[in-house]
Amino acid sequence: MIKNTITILLTLWSAVLAYTQSTEIPALGAQVIIEPAQEAKDVETWFHLLKENKMTVTRIRIFEEHLNQGTGNWDFSAYDRAFDLAHENGIKVFATLFPAVDPGNVGGFKFPRTENHQKRIAEYIRQVVTHFKDHPALYTWVLINEPGAGKAPLEEPFTKTKYQQWLANREASNYDNGYRKEELLPEMFLRDYNTWYLQWLSDEVKRYDTKHPQHANPHMLFNNLPEYDFSQWHPFLSSLGASMHPSWHFGYFDRDQYPIAISANNDIIRAGAGPLSFWVTELQGGNNTYSSYYPMNPTQEEIAQWLWTSIGCGAEGIIFWSLNQRTTGAEAGEWGMITNYNEPTDRLRMAKKVGETLGSNPSIFGSATPVTSDVHIVYVPEAMIIQNRYQVKWAPAPRYAGRSQGACIKSALAYYEALQEMGVSANLVASDDFNWENGQGQVVILANQVALPSRSWDKIDSFVKSGGKLIASGLTGYFDENVHNVMRTGWPLQKVFGAGVNEFKHIEEFFTLTLDDPGGSLPAHLWKGELKLFDAEAIGTGQNIVTASRHRYGKGEVVWIPSLVGLGAWQKDNAPLAQWLSKELSSALESVHFQFARQYPKVLLRVMRSGENYITVLVNKNEEEVEIEMKRPKILPQSLLFSSHNNPTTLTLKPGETQVLLWKK
Amino acid sequence: MIKNTITILLTLWSAVLAYTQSTEIPALGAQVIIEPAQEAKDVETWFHLLKENKMTVTRIRIFEEHLNQGTGNWDFSAYDRAFDLAHENGIKVFATLFPAVDPGNVGGFKFPRTENHQKRIAEYIRQVVTHFKDHPALYTWVLINEPGAGKAPLEEPFTKTKYQQWLANREASNYDNGYRKEELLPEMFLRDYNTWYLQWLSDEVKRYDTKHPQHANPHMLFNNLPEYDFSQWHPFLSSLGASMHPSWHFGYFDRDQYPIAISANNDIIRAGAGPLSFWVTELQGGNNTYSSYYPMNPTQEEIAQWLWTSIGCGAEGIIFWSLNQRTTGAEAGEWGMITNYNEPTDRLRMAKKVGETLGSNPSIFGSATPVTSDVHIVYVPEAMIIQNRYQVKWAPAPRYAGRSQGACIKSALAYYEALQEMGVSANLVASDDFNWENGQGQVVILANQVALPSRSWDKIDSFVKSGGKLIASGLTGYFDENVHNVMRTGWPLQKVFGAGVNEFKHIEEFFTLTLDDPGGSLPAHLWKGELKLFDAEAIGTGQNIVTASRHRYGKGEVVWIPSLVGLGAWQKDNAPLAQWLSKELSSALESVHFQFARQYPKVLLRVMRSGENYITVLVNKNEEEVEIEMKRPKILPQSLLFSSHNNPTTLTLKPGETQVLLWKK
Amino acid sequence: MIKNTITILLTLWSAVLAYTQSTEIPALGAQVIIEPAQEAKDVETWFHLLKENKMTVTRIRIFEEHLNQGTGNWDFSAYDRAFDLAHENGIKVFATLFPAVDPGNVGGFKFPRTENHQKRIAEYIRQVVTHFKDHPALYTWVLINEPGAGKAPLEEPFTKTKYQQWLANREASNYDNGYRKEELLPEMFLRDYNTWYLQWLSDEVKRYDTKHPQHANPHMLFNNLPEYDFSQWHPFLSSLGASMHPSWHFGYFDRDQYPIAISANNDIIRAGAGPLSFWVTELQGGNNTYSSYYPMNPTQEEIAQWLWTSIGCGAEGIIFWSLNQRTTGAEAGEWGMITNYNEPTDRLRMAKKVGETLGSNPSIFGSATPVTSDVHIVYVPEAMIIQNRYQVKWAPAPRYAGRSQGACIKSALAYYEALQEMGVSANLVASDDFNWENGQGQVVILANQVALPSRSWDKIDSFVKSGGKLIASGLTGYFDENVHNVMRTGWPLQKVFGAGVNEFKHIEEFFTLTLDDPGGSLPAHLWKGELKLFDAEAIGTGQNIVTASRHRYGKGEVVWIPSLVGLGAWQKDNAPLAQWLSKELSSALESVHFQFARQYPKVLLRVMRSGENYITVLVNKNEEEVEIEMKRPKILPQSLLFSSHNNPTTLTLKPGETQVLLWKK
Repeated sequence: MIKNTITILLTLWSAVLAYTQSTEIPALGAQVIIEPAQEAKDVETWFHLLKENKMTVTRIRIFEEHLNQGTGNWDFSAYDRAFDLAHENGIKVFATLFPAVDPGNVGGFKFPRTENHQKRIAEYIRQVVTHFKDHPALYTWVLINEPGAGKAPLEEPFTKTKYQQWLANREASNYDNGYRKEELLPEMFLRDYNTWYLQWLSDEVKRYDTKHPQHANPHMLFNNLPEYDFSQWHPFLSSLGASMHPSWHFGYFDRDQYPIAISANNDIIRAGAGPLSFWVTELQGGNNTYSSYYPMNPTQEEIAQWLWTSIGCGAEGIIFWSLNQRTTGAEAGEWGMITNYNEPTDRLRMAKKVGETLGSNPSIFGSATPVTSDVHIVYVPEAMIIQNRYQVKWAPAPRYAGRSQGACIKSALAYYEALQEMGVSANLVASDDFNWENGQGQVVILANQVALPSRSWDKIDSFVKSGGKLIASGLTGYFDENVHNVMRTGWPLQKVFGAGVNEFKHIEEFFTLTLDDPGGSLPAHLWKGELKLFDAEAIGTGQNIVTASRHRYGKGEVVWIPSLVGLGAWQKDNAPLAQWLSKELSSALESVHFQFARQYPKVLLRVMRSGENYITVLVNKNEEEVEIEMKRPKILPQSLLFSSHNNPTTLTLKPGETQVLLWKK
Repeated sequence: MIKNTITILLTLWSAVLAYTQSTEIPALGAQVIIEPAQEAKDVETWFHLLKENKMTVTRIRIFEEHLNQGTGNWDFSAYDRAFDLAHENGIKVFATLFPAVDPGNVGGFKFPRTENHQKRIAEYIRQVVTHFKDHPALYTWVLINEPGAGKAPLEEPFTKTKYQQWLANREASNYDNGYRKEELLPEMFLRDYNTWYLQWLSDEVKRYDTKHPQHANPHMLFNNLPEYDFSQWHPFLSSLGASMHPSWHFGYFDRDQYPIAISANNDIIRAGAGPLSFWVTELQGGNNTYSSYYPMNPTQEEIAQWLWTSIGCGAEGIIFWSLNQRTTGAEAGEWGMITNYNEPTDRLRMAKKVGETLGSNPSIFGSATPVTSDVHIVYVPEAMIIQNRYQVKWAPAPRYAGRSQGACIKSALAYYEALQEMGVSANLVASDDFNWENGQGQVVILANQVALPSRSWDKIDSFVKSGGKLIASGLTGYFDENVHNVMRTGWPLQKVFGAGVNEFKHIEEFFTLTLDDPGGSLPAHLWKGELKLFDAEAIGTGQNIVTASRHRYGKGEVVWIPSLVGLGAWQKDNAPLAQWLSKELSSALESVHFQFARQYPKVLLRVMRSGENYITVLVNKNEEEVEIEMKRPKILPQSLLFSSHNNPTTLTLKPGETQVLLWKK
Repeated sequence: MIKNTITILLTLWSAVLAYTQSTEIPALGAQVIIEPAQEAKDVETWFHLLKENKMTVTRIRIFEEHLNQGTGNWDFSAYDRAFDLAHENGIKVFATLFPAVDPGNVGGFKFPRTENHQKRIAEYIRQVVTHFKDHPALYTWVLINEPGAGKAPLEEPFTKTKYQQWLANREASNYDNGYRKEELLPEMFLRDYNTWYLQWLSDEVKRYDTKHPQHANPHMLFNNLPEYDFSQWHPFLSSLGASMHPSWHFGYFDRDQYPIAISANNDIIRAGAGPLSFWVTELQGGNNTYSSYYPMNPTQEEIAQWLWTSIGCGAEGIIFWSLNQRTTGAEAGEWGMITNYNEPTDRLRMAKKVGETLGSNPSIFGSATPVTSDVHIVYVPEAMIIQNRYQVKWAPAPRYAGRSQGACIKSALAYYEALQEMGVSANLVASDDFNWENGQGQVVILANQVALPSRSWDKIDSFVKSGGKLIASGLTGYFDENVHNVMRTGWPLQKVFGAGVNEFKHIEEFFTLTLDDPGGSLPAHLWKGELKLFDAEAIGTGQNIVTASRHRYGKGEVVWIPSLVGLGAWQKDNAPLAQWLSKELSSALESVHFQFARQYPKVLLRVMRSGENYITVLVNKNEEEVEIEMKRPKILPQSLLFSSHNNPTTLTLKPGETQVLLWKK
């Protein structure tokens, strides 16, 4: 049934898609928090401030608590005023549906708790959508605030029933190797359950409004990724969004890595969005006091870094959380971009400066599209799920990164970061969303993706056979989707890899892995995989053992390093990995038009093409000035579009500087 | 109804109050643990030991388990023997009511669990009070052991019912600013619920005995403070008590700060007692094995330090926990002051020496009263509640002090300690218990009191206007009592502070805040508040920002440093704060008769006036000898009343020494 | 009733015992994991591999999930094949009963959950035992995998009922000193409950098969020890087993202490086995990925160390977990000794080498029995229980070792290790299993056994009076079995110790205790006990206190050091303790035929007698070569039986080397 719906909707929504894919410059904006007790002049001021600061969009969360007076009476006055002010100031509204929550619930529930609750949600949607659907300021419905529950609330009757229905109705897999299966049922249910609820919300909105786009903004991406089945959302969403709050979401990163985190988050969302456009729907705009895991206050330099990195990744627009501050309870007085006296902070002034740069160059930025490379770092939801499920959570310290939540995605991010520091933007894409069909000229990196579902094996074979290059490291492929160790009972990738793993051996927290071809000494973590070669050749050897192999297969090849070199680089030093990749991927990198002459640690490069011209975004997170030498293009006239430091010297970046250059032939 | 009862009781109990407020010398004593299986000669020995060691009071916990034989039979024999022995030895008894507990419950329940349980408690009280009310040794009823639950046990039906009644009956506040309220309901209920239960216990005792005083001894003060509504206890209590066990209660302090902790605990209880006298009802007397969070064994030097500090703070008497050891289960063999062979330990011998000093100087100590200063460090229960409630408990390390439980009280204690080390005793008092009416010559410090209830705003205004000086630092005033950030929606203290906060910015764990007038560079923690000046003048500035202000208002002034300089001093170095205070408070400190010529780190001074003369208590917690120079009085004849080290050189203290001097004109 | 059963069974099972006590050489083996989907040729290969690698036993877990097809149909085909292959290859099978478990349960349940569950277990046993009882490969029934629950699952109705029956039926103790008792009810029930369930399993097996031996393999010994009442198992077991997985079980030890841990684990099991033989039923054979607390992969050197240490301790045989790897879920791809391609790892090759040495010397190893000393380190289950129960688990860091789980057994192990490093093997035995009757020439060490049950007091008296030497340290004897501090209310060992404790005093985490006779300065931990001497003499004194005593009593003596010198040695430095023991125990050590000339840190010596000859096992865990000088025997011809490093130089050990020597007169 879901499949039928998808087909129908794909047709119906093509018009909407066209509507949202524009050639406008990236839009900037900020959430306006509406509270009925606010004074009229304050609210007016905020919308004026948006306009004055070159912001063209806002996001408004429509709290049911503010509207629903009980006894059937709904009071929209505070929101009417806000929408009207938005319209008057030329601001487009992302309207977030936010049915009533329990006290203390800051971000909203993620699923209905009872049938009756679901009915109340439907009534709330009816009230809100019918009220605002014809308002000229309304731009997009945000179906829910930050989908993503971490785990399915199976203790709640509504969810439990849905789970049982799901169990009863799901299609049996064709794959059965005879061994016991430990299926990832609650976790895979959660993927489908998220999709189901988003679809239901979408349908409810469309009962009353079929003309406005719909949006959802997944959050806590590096942790919640396995529960987001992005491609299943394409039929009913118009755009996908990223919610990115470093102080909540970027725990895997140090502060000087936040541009990398922003970049990776954007890239994952862009890949997830597929044919849809994508937005940064929430970006931290202000200070933390009580809220957040890792409290911070963004500096104005960081505001520039995050905005331009997101723009460089292709975001349709970026909306800060928030312009004004919430005032009661959690987040009270936090996160805002204006002072308590409604004056712009340095953060808002920097955002304005970015907006001005965009606005002054409409033709350049209006037609700019992100340029990445032919390198695809592929993540596998089942790998992340198994990693989370099988960690021994009560193991005493030290809790090794390789045995803890995050081991798969950090391994992937290690390659991502090493490449970014070479000026090369890799793609970050879910295995099922990647197009494995033609590998010619393409590189895939499977970094410690501890499970490869059986459905992916043939695809990987095709990819390599057709000319693709595959780099596999860590415990990639150890399990299938049933937590079965296929390396023991008949390694399905033996033909394409030309080798198999004899065994993995725990060594110690860090050790060095030496490779011959191309040479290198990579820091590695915890386990060393020992290979048995069939048709592959050894490219890494130790005392009577083979630790890495290369297999030319069809038109492509597989490089296999079954040790945690990603986590070694991530935790220790990524220079050896960058060095090795520059050699191993030399032919793929030939096609990258812009790249650094060498690895620049803590420097980020994003590239956009705009017609015949290119835009580069450079961010320097070092505490020293850095002079960048480009490998390609060596000589091309550059002009400075933006410097957060008003620094006229192109390609020489002050500490913390973001520099945007236009490269014209 | 509570209000009526209060009025009636205030009248009835005036006689009792007179009874308990004496001009006797401070009494020393120790808890005698009664267990029915004890041998008669042991019990006799213990009471003899009390007498021999100059102890005149004891405390006896009357375990229902020892008395109630079931089927209506109550066996008081073991306790009759103990009371008789107390009487024979001239020892007054604090009798602690202790109805039957569940196995493993060491300290007793804090509230009835059911209606029936409440009836059983009442019957226990009837049995015990009618039995002992005419015993000549009986001195005071201790209504409960250590009130203070940490949180209300709302999961228990009895408490849940009381909570619902409380919710239904509480008076609505006049204060409503229109915004959403997050009321501190369970926490504020707990305050009233503690009062209700103490009152009920008091009433039950008075059914049978109206002539003996009544007492309660709150514990874990630095954590549980928000649940103690001291002034509401005045109508039915005769004296207030402190339970002070460094190994359980002083986790915020290092061991060399324990005299400061003892001093602060006493000062809070003295302020809480108001017109009542106060006792140290429990003071750690012996060793920890399994019990306690921070195990220790008090040295004899510490016994002297703790006793004299408490005496210097004005305690009516001090009772150790315990003379003899409990023998089964939790605390078995721990905490005692005598050996397993009924010989005095060095700790008891030191207590005796203190008792001898007191006994040898009855006229001096009998009329001695503590002398403090005109500096009042005010704490706000709502601030502590909000701090506890809104911390992100599951935030990973590092857990910053400013975002964790204790942030408010530690901020206050930082000022307290800095002043003590200058020889100045500040008062530590709850906001509602402080007399804000006439500020002339008075100083109030509000150190990171993150919430100021609306009812306090006008009082603060009056205080300053009438000549008071207010120092506010940290996030003081950020919230009202409804967790609403009033700094955002109309800062109620703008008139009196002459400024408002533009925003707080998270900087890093530690940074330095520079002040101009008086100059100083204070270590600060986490957040820097940026001010917008109205009528105030800047006394601290940074890059285009104002970080501190001074506002002369009416006859007084407000000094505002909206950064965590208290927690900076507490965690890093308090010398800059002490230095700054010595300048900023110079006129207030003029009136302090005794004080140090400079800050002496880890040296404590407490002062008592006795008629025309003064007594000073000096404690040196340094590992080196310290020679004290007094600023005032410079020259006055001193005589040595006590030295824990038998050190004849006054004002030069050996490491660990406590020295008590008499200053006679 | 239990007692009667014991008597009957003791008679019935004598034949079985004779059967299991053989003069065969120690057997080596490995667990073969059976999964029905395995390919026939793989299973054949595994049994061939066992044979080729000199393994003569295997262990097979008989998963009900593999057999029970529901509807009464049981499919044994996979297991029939395995048993047949075992038989064909001359491999004896330990068959582990393993009724169906819940998903995710790796090690099996430890008790039935319901009456019905118990019936299903019985039916499973009936099916399996009747099916295999006549199979020629069947060697021994393993009644359950790893008995040992940590705590009794009192929340389960079945266990709750058993507990209530146990409470109702247990015999009252004669011991009552009048004081309140905190009986160790759930913990002592768990001891009996484990025995009950093992007995019931045994009975169920014997319904169908009385001819095969029965076995059980307790695990996690250093933690679970108090729940194993070994001597009560003798009537129905034929042999006892140890399950030893360093990565799960040896958290109290560093990796270079694992041979000590292996040695201690074996010694405890040998003592527990009493008249029965004992096996190492599970020994870690391979790598950890997700499973385990302290992940590792045994090196081939460690395989030699662990095997020879176990052999030296007298194990009848050693079975690795596992030959092949489990393939799904927990442990998938882990723990095995062969590669994914069925080739022997270096670990299996080393095991083969050990097997070859054994097989080449049948007369030597066939009649070898372990030689220990007359030193007995006695542990007391009640002490461990009380230690666990009374620790303040929520105490903040630092969590001192003396106040945490493990304090009792680590104290004992400290002495054990110090003696082992002197080349002296002490016995490790439960208090109730030790023969206290004749102390002549015997030494008992009671190291921080914080409780001594009343039933042991007279035994200790007899032991010393009859000539035994007792060394007591730490808090030994503080409690009786009712958590009552007998040192306070009438020290029952005063006559034999000649002294009593005045009090224990917390000092600091580490301090030094100086002894006079023999001299020494021992690192000590947390508490210092101060003694009151009656008939004993002081052998350790401080400022006016006595910290250690010696009491000659009857023909024996007691040396008492009531401070945590065991935990001092364990945590800081054990050289002073070893030095002191070498003097204090000099006469007892005279009788030790083989020992080192001095302490060799991290060197292990185990000795076996074989007729007139001796076998020594030496293990060097130092990172440097060590040359061993023996104290006794000084000169005796040695020949090398085994060196893990093929090192021909006897008594000079390479780093990590295990050397086995034959000493012939």
